[in-house]
Amino acid sequence: MISWGIYFGGERAAEGSVTPWEVEGRVDYDRLIEEFGTQKFDRSLIERLERLAGESHYMLRRGIFFSHRDLDKVLEDYEKGGGFFLYTGRGPSGPMHIGHIIPFYFTKWLQERFKVNVYIQLTDDEKFLEKKRRLSLMETKKWSYENALDIIAVGFDPDRTFIFQDTEYMGHMYEAAIKVAKKVNFSTVRAVFGFNTSTNIGMIFFPAVQIVPTLFERRRCLIPAAIDQDPYWRVQRDIAEGLGFYKAAAIHSKFIPPLTGFQGKMSSSRPETAIYLNDPPKTIKEKIYKYAFSGGQPTVELHRKLGGNPDIDVSFQWLYMFFEPDDARIEEIREAYRSGSLLTGELKDMLIEKVEKFLEEHQSRRDEAKELINTFKYDGNLARRMWRETVASD
Amino acid sequence: MISWGIYFGGERAAEGSVTPWEVEGRVDYDRLIEEFGTQKFDRSLIERLERLAGESHYMLRRGIFFSHRDLDKVLEDYEKGGGFFLYTGRGPSGPMHIGHIIPFYFTKWLQERFKVNVYIQLTDDEKFLEKKRRLSLMETKKWSYENALDIIAVGFDPDRTFIFQDTEYMGHMYEAAIKVAKKVNFSTVRAVFGFNTSTNIGMIFFPAVQIVPTLFERRRCLIPAAIDQDPYWRVQRDIAEGLGFYKAAAIHSKFIPPLTGFQGKMSSSRPETAIYLNDPPKTIKEKIYKYAFSGGQPTVELHRKLGGNPDIDVSFQWLYMFFEPDDARIEEIREAYRSGSLLTGELKDMLIEKVEKFLEEHQSRRDEAKELINTFKYDGNLARRMWRETVASD
Repeated sequence: MISWGIYFGGERAAEGSVTPWEVEGRVDYDRLIEEFGTQKFDRSLIERLERLAGESHYMLRRGIFFSHRDLDKVLEDYEKGGGFFLYTGRGPSGPMHIGHIIPFYFTKWLQERFKVNVYIQLTDDEKFLEKKRRLSLMETKKWSYENALDIIAVGFDPDRTFIFQDTEYMGHMYEAAIKVAKKVNFSTVRAVFGFNTSTNIGMIFFPAVQIVPTLFERRRCLIPAAIDQDPYWRVQRDIAEGLGFYKAAAIHSKFIPPLTGFQGKMSSSRPETAIYLNDPPKTIKEKIYKYAFSGGQPTVELHRKLGGNPDIDVSFQWLYMFFEPDDARIEEIREAYRSGSLLTGELKDMLIEKVEKFLEEHQSRRDEAKELINTFKYDGNLARRMWRETVASD
Repeated sequence: MISWGIYFGGERAAEGSVTPWEVEGRVDYDRLIEEFGTQKFDRSLIERLERLAGESHYMLRRGIFFSHRDLDKVLEDYEKGGGFFLYTGRGPSGPMHIGHIIPFYFTKWLQERFKVNVYIQLTDDEKFLEKKRRLSLMETKKWSYENALDIIAVGFDPDRTFIFQDTEYMGHMYEAAIKVAKKVNFSTVRAVFGFNTSTNIGMIFFPAVQIVPTLFERRRCLIPAAIDQDPYWRVQRDIAEGLGFYKAAAIHSKFIPPLTGFQGKMSSSRPETAIYLNDPPKTIKEKIYKYAFSGGQPTVELHRKLGGNPDIDVSFQWLYMFFEPDDARIEEIREAYRSGSLLTGELKDMLIEKVEKFLEEHQSRRDEAKELINTFKYDGNLARRMWRETVASD
């Protein structure tokens, strides 16, 4: 779910591959589990998580999280009273869209149910260092502020959440960063992130910076992230114990498909693939009508006769993955669409209504967030503690 | 003169080569000027420097500085009232010896005569990152403290000097470091510093950190340094103007030869090559008697008859380069030695007396430095200003 990408280094990922910087083609999640060497997020583990959370969550029930590393150990620590902490982040390169914010809503649910600390890294350094973006540091700092407002609007606990921006907080992280960096060589980052000899030395160092927050507490760190970020945690897991810390644990979510269909991720360079958190109702309506990939038939007559395919219909998938939490209702919709009684236009109207309502509420909480930003960054309970400390210091 | 070396990366420099990390063989300074593409520090420039300084300096008169970059421009700026600043540093990997401290005495003279700011970087990060040293961060921090005392003992102006340790001050340097880092890629640091794919990503990033202090002021930065540090400044000079700063200027000193003769540099791994600032009188005497390479003849009789060779005699060279500022006296000694009237033992006694007196005084000033360390690091005029600022910030 962490959406910070990473410098592409001039090379192009193979078609259909998943790397931290690009997702192409339809994703085979079982193959990913095998290739990444992660564990299947199975029914019994989901039930254990929900039991401890004291509540079920529709994104868990519906398999939006399909893979994990060490979640069982995290839950075991929690059961024994040792606790854990959550870490996620955002690469502040522009405005946030629906795909960026959904994971934060799930992270917030975890915080609420487990009463744990959440650390949110804004990588203004990385987004500046990625040459292809052509962003000045002033711009990535500006986006850090704008994105922080959207993140705060999600409703995190101000005394258990620390939002930090790398260029501001580096003084407290640098010692930990060089301890990590000493254990990672160029061969490793070349193999893991596709860096090459033209990659700038700031980008080469950056993986150390992204790993540091996993060392913020001497407890297990759980990272809710899309699986394309897993390479960072693989590097972390190779070195963490040598530094006296825990290997990072992660739960991996599926990708929310772009409006335009199941190819790749929502992308800022193609605005038609995504709905932005500040899109006005008119734009939302237009984008969904115009671009939302449909699983329906070419004509109403054929649709009534043959029915639609909810598995490839993006409107249905968005409702299923995030916007319609009611299980009975979503199954009704699926059935109606499959049978042909629900038309594509009607399905799109349902999604439009949900998205509009969600964004209206989100925007209103975002306005209030301006009053809260200093609490999350500097003077909430957790923030104050973090500004007093040096991470993993001698 | 900056003595921080740099990670060796498993490769060995060719015999006779000068790199930032190793100096081998007798140095051909004219060849160095040609190879490094620097300018000869000629008589007229020395005279101009001395005229502006209002005083001559024996190290200048004697050609201890043989090469420079842009010193003429620094002096021009000074003449026009624009001023400049000095930057030097120390890699805190262990106790300091005579070879380490001499450059600081010359830097102090420059500060005194030109009334300029001096920035002294303690690279505790780099010395930790150099794997071959096997130093913990706690150790390089400890050496930062110990070395700072020796540097303060030199007598810098507490209100015009800022001593900073990378792990402490990085919060104020990181923005500038990533601006530098974005302009330097792996190919460059591989070519310039001999890094390879086994080099850790902290070392790969470090050249950016060493370059940052050249951006501390928007004036010309003058770096008194041994020429083996020049590669850093070559990288700096390629990118500084693109960042809106001046190309660094430098004056390059010859290497003070090891006690054992003209091969290589004084080395911490071979204690017989150097005299440490905390060596007691007994050790000083023993080391000079036992190891100081002699230009004398095998027997007293032969020496009286043929005379000694001051050019290769380390005792004479140490007196010439630093310990005997009196020009008339040093020429008397040279002549007496050459003629055979002065024996090697007598020459060594002269050096021993000078070194003992120098170290006794240095040690006593070092004791007083404990009271001054906070002034230089945190609350002198320049230090306070630097802790209020972020270097090269947007």
